[in-house]
Amino acid sequence: MKEFFQVTPLERVLEYTTEFAATGTETVSLAEALDRILAKDVIADQNLPEFARSVVDGYVVKAASTFGATESNPGYLTVKGEVFMGRPPDFAVGPGETAYIPTGGMLPTGTDSVVMIEHTEKLDDHAIEVFKSVAPGQNVILAGEDFKESETILAAGNRIRPQEAGLLAAFGVRSVPVFNKPRVGIISTGDEIVPIDQTPSFGQLRDINSYTLSGLVTKSGGIPVMFGIVKDDYESLFTRCSQALEESDAVLLSGGSSMGTRDLTVEILSRLPHSKILVHGIPISPGKPTILAQVGGKIFWGLPGHVVSAMIVFVVVVRPFLESLAGFSQSRKGAFGIPAKLTRNLASAQGRVDYIRVRLLQKEGSLWADPILGKSGLIHTMVKADGLIAIPMNTEGLDEGVQVEVFPV
Amino acid sequence: MKEFFQVTPLERVLEYTTEFAATGTETVSLAEALDRILAKDVIADQNLPEFARSVVDGYVVKAASTFGATESNPGYLTVKGEVFMGRPPDFAVGPGETAYIPTGGMLPTGTDSVVMIEHTEKLDDHAIEVFKSVAPGQNVILAGEDFKESETILAAGNRIRPQEAGLLAAFGVRSVPVFNKPRVGIISTGDEIVPIDQTPSFGQLRDINSYTLSGLVTKSGGIPVMFGIVKDDYESLFTRCSQALEESDAVLLSGGSSMGTRDLTVEILSRLPHSKILVHGIPISPGKPTILAQVGGKIFWGLPGHVVSAMIVFVVVVRPFLESLAGFSQSRKGAFGIPAKLTRNLASAQGRVDYIRVRLLQKEGSLWADPILGKSGLIHTMVKADGLIAIPMNTEGLDEGVQVEVFPV
Repeated sequence: MKEFFQVTPLERVLEYTTEFAATGTETVSLAEALDRILAKDVIADQNLPEFARSVVDGYVVKAASTFGATESNPGYLTVKGEVFMGRPPDFAVGPGETAYIPTGGMLPTGTDSVVMIEHTEKLDDHAIEVFKSVAPGQNVILAGEDFKESETILAAGNRIRPQEAGLLAAFGVRSVPVFNKPRVGIISTGDEIVPIDQTPSFGQLRDINSYTLSGLVTKSGGIPVMFGIVKDDYESLFTRCSQALEESDAVLLSGGSSMGTRDLTVEILSRLPHSKILVHGIPISPGKPTILAQVGGKIFWGLPGHVVSAMIVFVVVVRPFLESLAGFSQSRKGAFGIPAKLTRNLASAQGRVDYIRVRLLQKEGSLWADPILGKSGLIHTMVKADGLIAIPMNTEGLDEGVQVEVFPV
Repeated sequence: MKEFFQVTPLERVLEYTTEFAATGTETVSLAEALDRILAKDVIADQNLPEFARSVVDGYVVKAASTFGATESNPGYLTVKGEVFMGRPPDFAVGPGETAYIPTGGMLPTGTDSVVMIEHTEKLDDHAIEVFKSVAPGQNVILAGEDFKESETILAAGNRIRPQEAGLLAAFGVRSVPVFNKPRVGIISTGDEIVPIDQTPSFGQLRDINSYTLSGLVTKSGGIPVMFGIVKDDYESLFTRCSQALEESDAVLLSGGSSMGTRDLTVEILSRLPHSKILVHGIPISPGKPTILAQVGGKIFWGLPGHVVSAMIVFVVVVRPFLESLAGFSQSRKGAFGIPAKLTRNLASAQGRVDYIRVRLLQKEGSLWADPILGKSGLIHTMVKADGLIAIPMNTEGLDEGVQVEVFPV
């Protein structure tokens, strides 16, 4: 007798991310650390900067020496010398005194601010006029103003963008502890699927999902490992799934769009050691016949075979699991949807979340989301799309002009 | 006598992109083509799919055979056989006849639609009841419905996302013509800058810009080539700039924040053969003292030294030039700003575009852009930021609550 499974609400599916531990860690050079996820907090071993420095070209002073100076009533200051880049000044500057300082120069003892050069006039080698007063700290970066010693400069779980790479450079962090990229095995199944270097006969199609899914894995910070195409029979599928699980942190099997394949997948999962089917069906469209299992601590996904369905299931549910495996803790960062207005009415069935492909358009000073309708077996609909919108579970549809959130694809 | 330069409006600066030709092209495997820019139009050499196929499990029919069928008045059909995946059916289906077909199966001659299995009941091996009528084309993807033979499936200048990789796979395109990634030489200058493996003395700082800029180059589709740190003197700078120009498609020299360095850069540019300074100063803040030159057909940028200024100038003006070099024609695609509301009033000087770092916050069901103020020498302000907003040229400021567009950083 056939077992019946209940669909699992989307929020519950996403809670299973906590069942899977992050991958191990490794150390990479700073140049290779871009887009990786930091595995350990980095603590400041010094102030940044270590010394007060000027952010303009000008004359360095104790601010009080300039108080009251105006265009019509300039202050006179004695020039004590010149600050050179990259060297601590070998003189102090007292009240009524100053020194020339270039952008980035270190402040001499006794000073706290810099008058911009355009607000001064050189009288001779030993004296200048100042036309504007400055406040203490003005035109200066103070010691420790960027980061203070022993502060956490970057917490584990952050993705290293160009600015985080610069931050690590500032502290001389050349070896960066990062989480390993999860290895994701990809299997396509279906008796009608042929490798892309073959010319399909009538009734056959080239393997698209291996390429869309491996691209998505790469863009999610994983390493795709291709396990090719498997015929829809128990032995072949069991052997290839076992091998992929052995060699990967997660496995994506796509092609279970016919009931036969889905039944086969469930049968194989029930025979694999230490396996547990967590989810069999998610109330989303497209993508309902999705299977999630835990096999010996590894993640197994059975994805629908239609190319658009497989991509949407990846974006909506698979990606959060990969990000979690990859140690990414700030999943919200950069995951904001783009608010846009809907160009037309959209009907939707209740009891499921509908994901609709949209194109973004700029018109009348606003951003609009224009639905691209079409069967989920048609890849051109994803090629035309800039993103997805979700129509919530208990909504009969959305009206033209309402605000939606667009998630880029 | 010192020459004075006029600042160049931002729009005019961006028009100079057309002065630089795209890099050459190469051929890469489909697996390596992700995120590359397609260099030649790809034309469909067949219909996709080549045959009509079912998108559900069910019974394949000529739609007319089901007309009038309802729950209370089912239609009776004779089962002619079964369609197997990956093979053309070896039988035809006439009026009043049907055959079992799995998802993805090829339609037999004489059929145009599929009744979902849930709307049928098997009576015996030779007959079924149908409870719902179908329209011609229902539950079917027609031959050529995704793409028609000789149609352009993907135009040159498009970035290859996972879905475009899938599309190329569908047509068996294993060798993909793409534009070369532009090589971008990166030089840091400043007598106070030391390599990141050195412990800076008082007055010195580690080289941050080489790392932020190389990260930005990589994320813009270029190949960063590090030319290290150069002292602020004519000979060293001239030699290193010449070498970098020789070996790259574009050069970024950062560190010209002091007037001395800027003057030196201009002097060197005027001595390099076939060089022409196109821009000396842009009315943006931060980033005003930016230099753009054309040297023997290559791009030379003199960027400000402050880390935040250099990053902002990169995002606002350098990136469009790299995308143009890289052959990217749909620069709008994916470059939509994220609409958000401003959390506070922001003052701004007229006569320049102000770029403000912001953090994105979700509250009260809306997305808010929260300004991060701070000197442009402080990298922590970029680490905290999710994006940038622009305050236009002739605006005195923006009011709390107005809508702004956030460009991710």
